Amino acid sequence: MRDLDPNGSPASFSCPSPVPNPEVIVLGHGSGGRLTAELVSKVFLPALSNPLLDRLNDSTELNVDASRIVFTTDSFVVNPLRFPGGDIGALAINGTVNDLAVAGGQPIGLSAAFILEEGFPIAELKAFAQSMRTAADRAGVAIIAADTKVVERGKADGLFITTSGIGVVAPGVELGAERIQVGDAVLVSGPVGDHGIAVMSAREGLEFQTAIVSDSAPLNGLVASMLETGGGLRCMRDPTRGGVATVINELAKSSGVEILIEETFVPARDGVRAACEILGLDPLYVACEGRLVAIVDSADADKLLAAMRRHPLGSDACCIGTVRRSGTPRVLLRTAFGTIRMLDLLSGSQLPRIC
Amino acid sequence: MRDLDPNGSPASFSCPSPVPNPEVIVLGHGSGGRLTAELVSKVFLPALSNPLLDRLNDSTELNVDASRIVFTTDSFVVNPLRFPGGDIGALAINGTVNDLAVAGGQPIGLSAAFILEEGFPIAELKAFAQSMRTAADRAGVAIIAADTKVVERGKADGLFITTSGIGVVAPGVELGAERIQVGDAVLVSGPVGDHGIAVMSAREGLEFQTAIVSDSAPLNGLVASMLETGGGLRCMRDPTRGGVATVINELAKSSGVEILIEETFVPARDGVRAACEILGLDPLYVACEGRLVAIVDSADADKLLAAMRRHPLGSDACCIGTVRRSGTPRVLLRTAFGTIRMLDLLSGSQLPRIC
Repeated sequence: MRDLDPNGSPASFSCPSPVPNPEVIVLGHGSGGRLTAELVSKVFLPALSNPLLDRLNDSTELNVDASRIVFTTDSFVVNPLRFPGGDIGALAINGTVNDLAVAGGQPIGLSAAFILEEGFPIAELKAFAQSMRTAADRAGVAIIAADTKVVERGKADGLFITTSGIGVVAPGVELGAERIQVGDAVLVSGPVGDHGIAVMSAREGLEFQTAIVSDSAPLNGLVASMLETGGGLRCMRDPTRGGVATVINELAKSSGVEILIEETFVPARDGVRAACEILGLDPLYVACEGRLVAIVDSADADKLLAAMRRHPLGSDACCIGTVRRSGTPRVLLRTAFGTIRMLDLLSGSQLPRIC
Repeated sequence: MRDLDPNGSPASFSCPSPVPNPEVIVLGHGSGGRLTAELVSKVFLPALSNPLLDRLNDSTELNVDASRIVFTTDSFVVNPLRFPGGDIGALAINGTVNDLAVAGGQPIGLSAAFILEEGFPIAELKAFAQSMRTAADRAGVAIIAADTKVVERGKADGLFITTSGIGVVAPGVELGAERIQVGDAVLVSGPVGDHGIAVMSAREGLEFQTAIVSDSAPLNGLVASMLETGGGLRCMRDPTRGGVATVINELAKSSGVEILIEETFVPARDGVRAACEILGLDPLYVACEGRLVAIVDSADADKLLAAMRRHPLGSDACCIGTVRRSGTPRVLLRTAFGTIRMLDLLSGSQLPRIC
């Protein structure tokens, strides 16, 4: 209408200011991608900033007298509560154990806080508690603190579990994105995307020719095997929300390097590839819950890969890329066709509520 | 119908078995009272049992090399998110700081995990994050680990926050219900029930003649003052869900003693008493979020009370009862009329979602 105004002035008629679209939380804020990063940088860090939190690691290291501990927390809101290869209970244990493990910490205690919706079956709760116990036993750790809250029907979604964990870092273990150097190799401990596709198929009732099972597992044993080799390990991440592509982007950004990933080297099960093709997803962005990405000195890559492959959770470990140069932090992908393209953070969410 | 059967046999007509009422979670399971205790003893402990968790303390002590740390977790689902004297952000910090403090721990790091409902205003989230920062600064601790998850509209209630905390216990500090002895005094650090009534009045839109303001506050400074007196402190609790009566019951049970509380000694503001009368509540069961109950050697009670009263958060501290005998664990109340009655755990919930 304004264009029709002969004076060319929007002030010539009265119009209420448009109501600005209020800024609200959208599902993508929980994706682990660009919107999550924005929420952290614009909302949480301005209020909560401190040197330890600002590092934005999955675990935070702090000292207790002469000892080094790592501390982490994660809420689990996975939907559905059960999926092939796991459930919210096992996931809540493995997720927190893995955040400690990739920081070099052996877990010494976990906490679990339950938010229950009125009407949730107690038999189900028992089953999930048992599943937590089984997962904790497998990781060699105990749940030593807990809490329970209940909200009215319709005010939650059955069950949310928040776990936190404390781990101890052995003397001499030095890991961190700032240690990454040009020439380093990028390793992944096994096929990617199993967890995300398993949850997605359970949620949507999809059936694929090969059943896809979550990789949910505790990585502290695998990490211990890697640390025992005695060197060359720069840093590690567990590629959960946002998958391998997201954690490698975070590492590139934290360390200011360019990383090249070879698409043909990235291990993924045929079933995951097929499901991703049908669903329009890229396996590199699909969550894992029992895999790790490690950046290592290329001189030690073979030794570390051998150690990983000797462990049941690392039997398919392989090298998928290299740190090419410092300067502009970015991640590039050499595709199967030999072309090179940017492998960026996704802005929204491929798969909501997968952990 | 069965009574009319001339053979007196219910088998003489066909009737489907009645469907058993399935056991489901009710709001009372989150009350902190008898139903919560049942959920813990029948669901969580059978699955998760271990020596540290089995103690059922609000914080759990563990060793890191030669150091002693305490670890705790709590989810906060308070409704409404803002209330006189506080909000969910401040509450989530103070609640966890206090669980560490009453275990003798000075907090060295907190974590915060946010579960957000799609559509939640980002400006609100900023305000709550700022409130957490202010509360954390007041307690002298930082949030050093965090996580954010988002669930669809209608699958949560705006915002839930789960905080966990690590505290360090100084050498020589020895606290625990097992240290309680016959003859000990029961102290409370100030008037009871402010928090529960403040939340209740905000939720229900009640207006009382005197505005009732939550007592939400960090107790680590007060506890430090008490520990500095150098002795006689057996154990402490912060009387949140279930109030003073519930924590004293837990202490009586853990230590196998009979405790007598003098009703006329229990401090409560006139406004809280009036509100409780109108609402049919007993102030002894209404939550505090900035008070502590301490069981102390009666020989040191005056010294400890004096130290408490010198601290702004303990200025109204007083003695409300004594440990009378060992044997049957129970809590008795001598009423204003001089009669004595049992002060038991409540079976359900007086006030749901007050923290």
